[in-house]
Amino acid sequence: MAKPNVLIIGAGGVAQVAAHKVAQRADDFGEIHMANRTRAKADAIVQSIRDKGHAVAERIATHTLDGMDSAAVAALIRQTGARIVINVGSPFINMTVLQGCIDTGAAYIDTAIHEDPAKICEAAPWYANYEWKRREDCENSGVTAILGAGFDPGVVNAYARLAEDEYFDKIDEIDIVDINAGNHGRYFATNFDPEINFREFTGKVITWQGGKWQENAMFEVGREWDLPVVGKRTAYLSGHDEIHSLAARYPQADVRFWMGFGDHYINVFTVLKNLGLLSEHPVKTAEGLEVVPLKVVKAVLPDPASLAAGYTGKTCIGDLVKGSRDGKQGEVFIYNVADHEEAFAEVGSQGISYTAGVPPVAAAVLIARGDWDVKRMVNVEDLPARPFLELLGEMGLPTRIIDENGDRPL
Amino acid sequence: MAKPNVLIIGAGGVAQVAAHKVAQRADDFGEIHMANRTRAKADAIVQSIRDKGHAVAERIATHTLDGMDSAAVAALIRQTGARIVINVGSPFINMTVLQGCIDTGAAYIDTAIHEDPAKICEAAPWYANYEWKRREDCENSGVTAILGAGFDPGVVNAYARLAEDEYFDKIDEIDIVDINAGNHGRYFATNFDPEINFREFTGKVITWQGGKWQENAMFEVGREWDLPVVGKRTAYLSGHDEIHSLAARYPQADVRFWMGFGDHYINVFTVLKNLGLLSEHPVKTAEGLEVVPLKVVKAVLPDPASLAAGYTGKTCIGDLVKGSRDGKQGEVFIYNVADHEEAFAEVGSQGISYTAGVPPVAAAVLIARGDWDVKRMVNVEDLPARPFLELLGEMGLPTRIIDENGDRPL
Repeated sequence: MAKPNVLIIGAGGVAQVAAHKVAQRADDFGEIHMANRTRAKADAIVQSIRDKGHAVAERIATHTLDGMDSAAVAALIRQTGARIVINVGSPFINMTVLQGCIDTGAAYIDTAIHEDPAKICEAAPWYANYEWKRREDCENSGVTAILGAGFDPGVVNAYARLAEDEYFDKIDEIDIVDINAGNHGRYFATNFDPEINFREFTGKVITWQGGKWQENAMFEVGREWDLPVVGKRTAYLSGHDEIHSLAARYPQADVRFWMGFGDHYINVFTVLKNLGLLSEHPVKTAEGLEVVPLKVVKAVLPDPASLAAGYTGKTCIGDLVKGSRDGKQGEVFIYNVADHEEAFAEVGSQGISYTAGVPPVAAAVLIARGDWDVKRMVNVEDLPARPFLELLGEMGLPTRIIDENGDRPL
Repeated sequence: MAKPNVLIIGAGGVAQVAAHKVAQRADDFGEIHMANRTRAKADAIVQSIRDKGHAVAERIATHTLDGMDSAAVAALIRQTGARIVINVGSPFINMTVLQGCIDTGAAYIDTAIHEDPAKICEAAPWYANYEWKRREDCENSGVTAILGAGFDPGVVNAYARLAEDEYFDKIDEIDIVDINAGNHGRYFATNFDPEINFREFTGKVITWQGGKWQENAMFEVGREWDLPVVGKRTAYLSGHDEIHSLAARYPQADVRFWMGFGDHYINVFTVLKNLGLLSEHPVKTAEGLEVVPLKVVKAVLPDPASLAAGYTGKTCIGDLVKGSRDGKQGEVFIYNVADHEEAFAEVGSQGISYTAGVPPVAAAVLIARGDWDVKRMVNVEDLPARPFLELLGEMGLPTRIIDENGDRPL
């Protein structure tokens, strides 16, 4: 069987990592294409691949694409003959890119839930508002759609599935903990698009506990964690995509997400939020100009891609899963540690982009191999975890496990 | 002699106070006119005067005026027959309004130094960059121009002059302290136009010490003061208009300005400044919209006028003057305490607007009476202080004095 052509959509920090990883794994794919609203940004990524000495860079074609236009997406898929689309653009384009895949039969991979720019924090489960409404279309068209295949969501969903497959016959609690102990040296910056980053924390915090959706305010619930490598860190109960699919597979379990924040981040966030500067609703200046405050905040903050050079320190992201097997209670912590400087040396990106950008390429490789080419819409926990986690180990995101037998590689 | 017609330019919080005070002192003036870019705001002020039961409200005429257009200012002065112009609009319009007065022979009063919207913190002394360049024009045309006749600058300049007239033959130190111990109950707000307020603190701090201009960073130098009524408060060395004229009259003295700030104000200010959100230079959003961050911050903050209802507490602003008479060292603290609730009850404004809006009307009364109709450009300390301070006492801003003989009214 011919190796499938692949189309990467987007040209931000995560797309840069994904493109480098596709280039590294070029043998698994046919032609490689990249498309973005601003084509020059895709060209810059190709140049960075060339700079790392990958001859395959000469074979990567770039295209201009408005990802909000599903007909344009379908046309580009047909033009490029892409059989796998890695959508690592803004989450605002998910549904139009997915539609383009459904219309052409290409496989679809993304790393975050679709968002409507005008809405924050819709009814749970979030996947049901958009992606899951296309489940039947995917089934009918035999389209493989793997949702949320970044790190969180993505790898952390596979960690939960690994606990199900290899540790417990009943899962009681899934606590996903995301700590970035890195230092970018700026007064303040977000690690990915500020608009998307802040949107995660301006709404209410939705978690799945006690068999139902629970609501809290951001920074209302904090807990100190003591994790490998990064040590003691305070993380706060936060809303996050993966809760909205894991709750469907593990309805009997409490599913929570904890994001690490320093006091400085919380202070800046709190000031901006209380002043109304994180609002997505336009305000009018005294001069009559209509402007969305959040977009101005984004404009004054450092470009997340600019943080990569000189970013030091490590991230630790993992799942603390509690459950029982044959009635015996137990717990396991399944995790990855990534290093900002190593990520930069390898692909020119910081560690947050690295952890998010490698997994969708691993998913693409598994589709190309046929292992994950399931011809329907799934979340990552719906598929066997081992092949994915083992491939991620080869690709730079090794899994480690702490249980009663100690701390060791998968 | 016929009583002079008066024209108030501006319709913000300070203009509201000035208009109420002119209405209260209607017997000192002929016709009363108000002009503003948005005439409806002037009409609203007239309505508030009517609501306080002043029959004179029916005689106040309002006009639309672009204060940046000196020909339009001159035309309106001619049309209204105004002999006194009280400029309580934005400091961006000072020079054009002043020109209109010079062209028509009307007396000019303002409450702050001219500012160019594109520049922050120009070379000291600031008055020399704009207003003082028109000194000769005023002299030649016999135009009375009283600069900086608000509270600070304004009344605090008169306090220094009072110390010169009645306490010392040599002045060594003038420390002006401005404490607002009021509470507006909002998360954060500025007491006057946020754009103007923040511009005071985003540049370097310029003071006159040791016979020369000194520079510090904002919040670099703090000192705890223990003042009447408001008690112990920390105030920070700040740049302020009055230093730039007092240094000319008292070159041998150290002239400093101290503004009281709470930790919360400093934190919000620091976050906004460090992020670049207080910049007057446009940034471009990802969507290509050019926007000045400071104008967006202004748009999301409460309208200072909206703070007036429910504002509680008091302000204390005064001069600690050290000097000697006949070789004997001494010091005097000359000050005023104003009350936010009393200001609101009287004129519908908060205390900060009240302290700034009453003095230019007192100056106008003194011009109308002839006492201050000096036919040249002056700063407040160039004129005898007693008539001004005694009139201010009648008009709601009593002066008190603390010296070796205790704390007592002027």
